Amino acid sequence: MAKPGVLTPQAEDFPRWYQDVVAKAELADNGPVRGTMVIRPTGYALWERIQREMDDRIKAAGAQNAYFPLFIPQSYLAREAEHVEGFAPELAVVTHAGGKELEEPIVVRPTSETVIGEFMAKWVQSYRDLPLLLNQWANVVRWELRPRVFLRTTEFLWQEGHTAHASREDASAYARRILHEAYQDVIAGVLGIPVVVGCKTVKERFAGAINTMTLESMMRDGKALQMGTSHELGQNFARAFGIEYTSDTGSREHAWTTSWGSTTRMVGALVMAHGDDNGMRVPPNLAPVQVLVMVVKAGDGVAEAAEQLVDDLRAAGVRVALDDRVDTAFGRRAVDAELKGVPVRIEVGPRDLADQKVTLVRRIAGSKTPTELTAVVTAAKAALAEDQDVLYSEALERREKSTVDVATVADAAEAAKTGWARIPWSTLGVEGEAELAKDAVSVRVLTRPDGGVPDGPDEADLTAWVARSY
Amino acid sequence: MAKPGVLTPQAEDFPRWYQDVVAKAELADNGPVRGTMVIRPTGYALWERIQREMDDRIKAAGAQNAYFPLFIPQSYLAREAEHVEGFAPELAVVTHAGGKELEEPIVVRPTSETVIGEFMAKWVQSYRDLPLLLNQWANVVRWELRPRVFLRTTEFLWQEGHTAHASREDASAYARRILHEAYQDVIAGVLGIPVVVGCKTVKERFAGAINTMTLESMMRDGKALQMGTSHELGQNFARAFGIEYTSDTGSREHAWTTSWGSTTRMVGALVMAHGDDNGMRVPPNLAPVQVLVMVVKAGDGVAEAAEQLVDDLRAAGVRVALDDRVDTAFGRRAVDAELKGVPVRIEVGPRDLADQKVTLVRRIAGSKTPTELTAVVTAAKAALAEDQDVLYSEALERREKSTVDVATVADAAEAAKTGWARIPWSTLGVEGEAELAKDAVSVRVLTRPDGGVPDGPDEADLTAWVARSY
Repeated sequence: MAKPGVLTPQAEDFPRWYQDVVAKAELADNGPVRGTMVIRPTGYALWERIQREMDDRIKAAGAQNAYFPLFIPQSYLAREAEHVEGFAPELAVVTHAGGKELEEPIVVRPTSETVIGEFMAKWVQSYRDLPLLLNQWANVVRWELRPRVFLRTTEFLWQEGHTAHASREDASAYARRILHEAYQDVIAGVLGIPVVVGCKTVKERFAGAINTMTLESMMRDGKALQMGTSHELGQNFARAFGIEYTSDTGSREHAWTTSWGSTTRMVGALVMAHGDDNGMRVPPNLAPVQVLVMVVKAGDGVAEAAEQLVDDLRAAGVRVALDDRVDTAFGRRAVDAELKGVPVRIEVGPRDLADQKVTLVRRIAGSKTPTELTAVVTAAKAALAEDQDVLYSEALERREKSTVDVATVADAAEAAKTGWARIPWSTLGVEGEAELAKDAVSVRVLTRPDGGVPDGPDEADLTAWVARSY
Repeated sequence: MAKPGVLTPQAEDFPRWYQDVVAKAELADNGPVRGTMVIRPTGYALWERIQREMDDRIKAAGAQNAYFPLFIPQSYLAREAEHVEGFAPELAVVTHAGGKELEEPIVVRPTSETVIGEFMAKWVQSYRDLPLLLNQWANVVRWELRPRVFLRTTEFLWQEGHTAHASREDASAYARRILHEAYQDVIAGVLGIPVVVGCKTVKERFAGAINTMTLESMMRDGKALQMGTSHELGQNFARAFGIEYTSDTGSREHAWTTSWGSTTRMVGALVMAHGDDNGMRVPPNLAPVQVLVMVVKAGDGVAEAAEQLVDDLRAAGVRVALDDRVDTAFGRRAVDAELKGVPVRIEVGPRDLADQKVTLVRRIAGSKTPTELTAVVTAAKAALAEDQDVLYSEALERREKSTVDVATVADAAEAAKTGWARIPWSTLGVEGEAELAKDAVSVRVLTRPDGGVPDGPDEADLTAWVARSY
């Protein structure tokens, strides 16, 4: 367990606790240019695992990876009126390059609908070219006024998918497929974070979309975090960039496009959804290191037993690492493993080993159990499976306890001080939404009674989930 | 085989052939901002495979991935005098962001020694913190006067490794380890491209390095392409950024740093080292699709047999894809597979299948062989193994035939019109090097008689490899 004082307790100051974890677990540092971040190896390993899981699912949904330029001519953004209005205040602009002033300023991509739209228009000619399903892993830049590491940074890493379809129905179905089969599956199933899936209000919609779908999660301070979004762009970008195709009846039609993104903020979500006063708690399905075998101190056969255990765990399909840095105090190493949230530690010391035992430490359950050496691989695997579910259940229970149904705007604002409120969208409406905004409270997501994702905020019988948010 | 006229023949106009392949095989397009590129799915799949192979080896060498910001304060670059002199003419500069003019202009990273140096100085305190072995996969920007897709683009993708060590010996050994165990192993073993490994002259050295090591390969037009570089940076950056540590005897010392990079130009190398007049020839070890099972036309059991074959090949560990687009002319699909260089095609048609046969087409050998259905998985695997070696041997033989030993600068310049020249570095010298530069000929690499990589151009008995280059 971490020594008292390593981290500011959550209950005392949650934002400070978050900053402490990010620093002490060596996840990230602030970069030299305001709002940028340096993702350190511990943080980046989490992102790489998220990438791998997400990329597999995106490919399974038929999209192919590509790469579009970082630099976009400023004129491209102006072609879609709502889009440029939404992004203009956040742009970074290159005015000089190669020692000269440029004739046309270049923007550093805040998102790539415009440049990808330009190329889709080249590549799409016939209905046979559709659907066109593209994805890219890239960095993007949005000048943030109130940056916060992982959650809102001037530069962040993400995947952005961009697709073109022959019909609204096909575009709509694909945007939903990604929402569920990629985003929800990774966030709930791998990150162990429950999500509420629905659509955004017009106020919260992506600039240029006809419907923005979202997944919202509750952090341990009761605030909401948007985990990913999938947009139906209608024919807005197809018209702006001339993405047209010849249909099977020979007519010329505009395509229907979608875009969808998920970012490095998921690393921040992981910290804030599961972390406790001792540091991170990383869900086993995600953990780059699921089991850390620790040599407590050198002694009769300890190193050999630890190495054998690493081999056995690896052979059993476990992501395992060895900590044999006996020149560093064991307590310090244990605190570090707690901070970084390694799900299972197996401590191998000379005294236990004399009895053919080791100690199994579960970060999520918080237990320490002497275990027979011959039984520890099985016990570790069982712990990993169990604790993945424990984290998810805990988070779901917390969200349910912290969400109340209300009937008035005043009660919604009050509830949002500590958690979430649910209120009929017909009761709240855009006026109520504007009222809440004065207290920095917003409608995070609109859901349908049947659990389906709405086509937009105009549908009947929608529930508004109201919260403060990151 | 591709129809005559699809590609400009290599012998007629090699640069035009290259542009044709890049376009027709759908590898990349030029981006809207001068010198940028759009990497299309076919090209990006090659890059992803290169990344995976390189990343595995970099991790095996002990380096960890991280991510540093795209934006670097302009003042950082100025701290290392040679470095800023080398990169200043190529910088892209952000002067406005968030709707305002910035107080200090920001450069878009051309490489990250400076920003990583700044953080190494924070993280390195004691000899226990060394070696610090970092790598990142990122985009970088260098304003190029004569851009060419994949080979020299304003923005490119790469990995850049940055390490800090307690001694020059350790730094030197690690820079060499990456050169051999990561770069040479991937380029020769996976890309199937022979390399000459050595060091650069002072003129060709990285700005700020004390020794730049390189791997150079010959393209099919006789020009050289630098495939990757690994730099010993001495204590230059450690002094500029204050990367200091307390040694085990308590003294304060500057660290010794290295950096090393390999880029998307390897995709261009793949085209130019192996391609022929029908398109790319992708080495089996790299190929995203090693075997393409093609349904020639629909018919009795053809689709089922093709699908079964895909399953069998996948079960045998082959990367396989199915082409069952029978609504597109078979000839067109075959030309496309030739262009994209898929190593092995298995054509499944109703007539052959009636005799329990399929046709095995080998892109690299250029053969078409009717093969028993029951024997085709084994035959395909044998072809993949064999053709990997064939590509490498062909390229090595071509290089050896096109490289001559010369004794004068004039003969070196003459030889470089069509291939490479080898000349004792003691004969050539910096004067000869300057003389050759007038004809756009340069010293690509200096090698030692014993095959080891020199510590620099001052060693005795070095051989200079002289060529025109990309």
